Amino acid sequence: MIEPQQLMRLAIEKGRESIGAGQSPFACAIAKGDRVLAVEHNAVWRNTDPTAHAEINAIRHACRTLGAIFLEDCTVATTTEPCPMCMAALHWARVREVYYGAAIADAEAAGFNELQLAAADLLRIGKSGVKLHAGLLADECRALFAEWKAHGGRPY
Amino acid sequence: MIEPQQLMRLAIEKGRESIGAGQSPFACAIAKGDRVLAVEHNAVWRNTDPTAHAEINAIRHACRTLGAIFLEDCTVATTTEPCPMCMAALHWARVREVYYGAAIADAEAAGFNELQLAAADLLRIGKSGVKLHAGLLADECRALFAEWKAHGGRPY
Repeated sequence: MIEPQQLMRLAIEKGRESIGAGQSPFACAIAKGDRVLAVEHNAVWRNTDPTAHAEINAIRHACRTLGAIFLEDCTVATTTEPCPMCMAALHWARVREVYYGAAIADAEAAGFNELQLAAADLLRIGKSGVKLHAGLLADECRALFAEWKAHGGRPY
Repeated sequence: MIEPQQLMRLAIEKGRESIGAGQSPFACAIAKGDRVLAVEHNAVWRNTDPTAHAEINAIRHACRTLGAIFLEDCTVATTTEPCPMCMAALHWARVREVYYGAAIADAEAAGFNELQLAAADLLRIGKSGVKLHAGLLADECRALFAEWKAHGGRPY
């Protein structure tokens, strides 16, 4: 069983890779038991695709890996709180639990055009069974924004 | 300028194609002025990808067509009210307006594991500038569910 903190460290490392590749400072890792199914970063600019957030990319990769549309019993670590698109995608994928580091407010402060809806509120209002845990390695996740800014990153 | 009703008819036709291909009864069309940029259907089963909803597929296609991550001044017609994943994706893509036919409740009644959050509520709570119009050709859009059921469709 991979610990959430280990999984988040894989995501943070992938987030640094994203910044180095001129992409946005977000990354996401998905594991089932002791098997890592996906570690992906945001690729909106690279793919010319506004839906290519880290979580969406990781879900797609993990589902291809498993050959299934459901990621039951899977744990997700994502460097920033999922936006409503990604939180709803994680709900559709039936993941068990999601750990995040930085907050949507951090992404908004960095210039991203965030909807004003916390992931916890979407789950509560929407009556989802996905479990959410905030603030895992939050300082390290937030530090990705400064690194990205220093690298000349563009928000969208 | 393509009228929303014409655009919705393209989506409905694509929805029938989706059912015939063993996919889910959802389709979405996107236009900019008189140019149709994308007409796509849901491909969750075909692609083994829980994020491959009609709107996500259409956004990706339209962005590739334009070579841009923003779909400004674009009009969207989608056979069913966008789920929070798709409504947020349309917000990220900066589309101008979205017309839909059937409601999330219709999809839920058909067995889909919908989050309990109306598209209008997501936009309002989230403070999005996307304009939303409900009930365009709603009867024809709802009829897709019966056709899909008769075809042995599986919800997820």
